[in-house]
Formats: sequence, C-alpha cells, structure tokens
Amino acid sequence: MSGWIAVAGLGPGAEALVTPEVSAALAEATDVIGYVPYVARVAPRPGLALHPSDNRVELDRAAHALDLAAAGARVVIVSSGDPGVFAMASALFEAVEARGGTGADIRILPGITAMLAAAARAGAPLGHDFCAINLSDNLKPFALVEHRLRHAAQGDFAMAFYNPRSRARPHQFARVLEILREECGPDRLITFARAVTTAQERIETVTLNEARPEMADMRTVVLVGNAGTRRVGRWIYTPRGVPAP
Amino acid sequence: MSGWIAVAGLGPGAEALVTPEVSAALAEATDVIGYVPYVARVAPRPGLALHPSDNRVELDRAAHALDLAAAGARVVIVSSGDPGVFAMASALFEAVEARGGTGADIRILPGITAMLAAAARAGAPLGHDFCAINLSDNLKPFALVEHRLRHAAQGDFAMAFYNPRSRARPHQFARVLEILREECGPDRLITFARAVTTAQERIETVTLNEARPEMADMRTVVLVGNAGTRRVGRWIYTPRGVPAP
Repeated sequence: MSGWIAVAGLGPGAEALVTPEVSAALAEATDVIGYVPYVARVAPRPGLALHPSDNRVELDRAAHALDLAAAGARVVIVSSGDPGVFAMASALFEAVEARGGTGADIRILPGITAMLAAAARAGAPLGHDFCAINLSDNLKPFALVEHRLRHAAQGDFAMAFYNPRSRARPHQFARVLEILREECGPDRLITFARAVTTAQERIETVTLNEARPEMADMRTVVLVGNAGTRRVGRWIYTPRGVPAP
Repeated sequence: MSGWIAVAGLGPGAEALVTPEVSAALAEATDVIGYVPYVARVAPRPGLALHPSDNRVELDRAAHALDLAAAGARVVIVSSGDPGVFAMASALFEAVEARGGTGADIRILPGITAMLAAAARAGAPLGHDFCAINLSDNLKPFALVEHRLRHAAQGDFAMAFYNPRSRARPHQFARVLEILREECGPDRLITFARAVTTAQERIETVTLNEARPEMADMRTVVLVGNAGTRRVGRWIYTPRGVPAP
C-alpha cells in the first residue's frame, strides 16, 4: 500500500505564519524530510521520524521521500517559505520524472514565501507587477541572471531576489547592483529584508546609490521597487497603477 | 487614543490556508472592512462590525479604515490571497499618503496568494524565476501590459496573470494569448486555475495553441511555463535550473 508525500511550506519563520493545512499534515506524518534548519522547526513526537539533511541534496531528499512513501509512509518534505518558489516541489517532480512515475499520492501545500513576508514588513513594495529571481548561479549560468535582470528592469517590474549572496560568490551581487544602477538609476528604492518574522529580523530600505553588497547575505531577501515606488512615513509602497501617458 | 489597522490576506478560499496570525487579528478586531465576498468569509460575532463594500472602491475603503482607527477602532481590512499582491495594502498606503500620514498602527499580514495556491495544485510551474502581472487595464494602459508581457517572455520567465479577463474587456485576453504565441511558440504550457481551493476549483493545462480566451474569467489565475516547463504524470513543473549552454 502506497503512502503519501506532502511538500509543505513552513513560511518564513514565525509559527503564526504556518497554515493550518501544513500543521495538519505534520500531525499525520510518519516521516519528516528536509534541510537541517527546517526540520528543526518540527516538534518531535513518538511515531514521527525526523530526517534532516544538508543543503544542496534536494534530489537525494526527494528520492528518499519517494522510497519511504512506496513503503507506505506518510511523508512531509518541509521547505521554508513556499515549496513551489525556489524550493523542494520542483525537485520532487524531477525525481518522479527520473524514476518514470510514482504510485504515491503527492500534495503540494503552499506557504508564505519570503518575498511576500518581507514585502508585508516593509509596506507594499510588490503592490504592482513584479518578478521573482533566484540570484544563485548554482543551477543556471550567471549570464541568464543578467539577461533576466535587464528584462525585468526594462519592463519596469518591481523585483524580489532570493539567494542574493553567498560566501562562494561574493562578487556577483555587486554586479547585480551595478546592472540595476545602470537600468534603473541611482534613486530607485531597494529593501534588504533579513530573517523576516524571526527574532533576528532586520529591514532596511535605501537607494540603489546607497546599496552595498554587504547589506545582503543568504538569509536576506532583496526587494527592488519599480519607477513609482516611494516612501510614506516608515513604509515603502508601489502604487497599484501607472497613469496613462 | 489611536487604534490599529491590519491588512490581512485570507488566502485563496480554503479555511485551512488562513494563517493563525490573520485569525488572531480577526479575533481582536472591532471592525472588518472589505469587498463583499471577502467580508462574507468572516464569522459574525457580538462586538464586531462588518463593513462590506463594492469592488473598485479601494481608496474609500482605506479612508474608512483610517477614520475608524483614528477613533480608536481595531480594524482589519480583508483581502483575498495576499494583501500586498494586487490588493488592499497599496491602496491603504495611497490613502495614508493622501492625508499626509496617520497616527494608527498599521500591520500588513501576508496570506497565500492565488498564484502560489494555483501552482501548488498544478504541480510546480513557478519553480524557477517568474513574473506576476495584473492583466487588468483598470489602473494602467494596456500598452504597458503588452510591453511587460514581451519582456517577461523574452527573459524566459514563467508567468502568473491576475485578473486575466472581465466582461468589460473580453478582447484583451485574446490579444495576450496572441502575444504569448508569438513570443513563446505554440507548445508552451499554460494552466487555467479557477476558484482554487474552493468547491468550484477547476485546473486545466493546455498548450498555447489549444488555449482559448473563454478558458479564463475573473476567478481564474493563469500560469504560463517557461521554455523548460513540462508534464510529469498529472502534474506540470518547471525545473529548478537551466543548464549552461
């Protein structure tokens, strides 16, 4: 008898942002699989096996979940944020495709993704058309990042960047800021939102001219406004529309 | 004494997707403001005044919330999905700006936005870089929609469209499909997700060649894959990366 797999988004960090749907799946699970800090957010209980694993082993993790489910387990793969946004859902389907299918019942359980939690804390910087871009070149060439940045800027999209900067590639985010200054000018607003909704949360909005690569790390999501984004009081927001020319 | 305003996202429809944070705010509120069908999702109770209003009066609604909060009320403005994505958060900040500030405490409470709920039901079509575009020309010229569509397609972003089609502008979505066929070719996958997570949910994935304007209405969110998006079993997904050329 086949079990099931739920790929669940735990949201950005605060327990109050975990959906009841995800909590219910965790309450029924026999096994929880995921990156160490996400599995650490799940309370241990009798009958629940926790399987924490390192970063960058997404496909192994997905294969492990498929094996457990094939043996009848009820498996929750935990992601932070939303599992469909630069997280485990795509990895699971890659693994399913690689083995030519699965008998397991699969459900993807959405969560509050980092960019929307960050936007909420900053005001409403993504209140009009926007793009989400993963700046890591772990799984794509950096030239494609540059190409997408320019299209996003030329389309006057607001932008959200995931994985803006790591120790392995400190220079690339400096290049991103350069491209943005070229395309959007020095006064465009940019928000660095670190560890959103946790005790370490820090939200800072500056102009592109003031932005420095060191303002981002791997726990930061970066939001860039469109041409109309502005400050009101301690908030920033992007108007809902653009007047006809 | 000033009250507070929380702009809360109720998610796409299912109660299991309302965050505990939003439920807690509703439990403390004295007043709930919003578009009729969203206010209808809030359970009445003694001490809670419900203020449903029509569509397209976002700024009146925001001004009403500011007036109530100035008089000490605890106001929740309800949006479906996430309040920061084509919803009430930007409208509130526009209203705050128009009156030169507010003494009220404002919090934006994120929710599960329609595109991420739809993506989860379909698989993982937004598993790589993507754009969110509001196709309505209510608050921007349609030429800007076209401009953004072409940049999104040329950047090979996956895409999510909000408000794809209304009775007032039935021809525009036909034009959107034409542009997409030009830019992305006939075989690109497109998903029509209607009334996601409700009893009326319907999810349908076809190629651009098979897509018809009638497949969308105002309760539909539309997802378009990137060049790598494909089917696996009953799911569609976008791989997490793009191989180097």
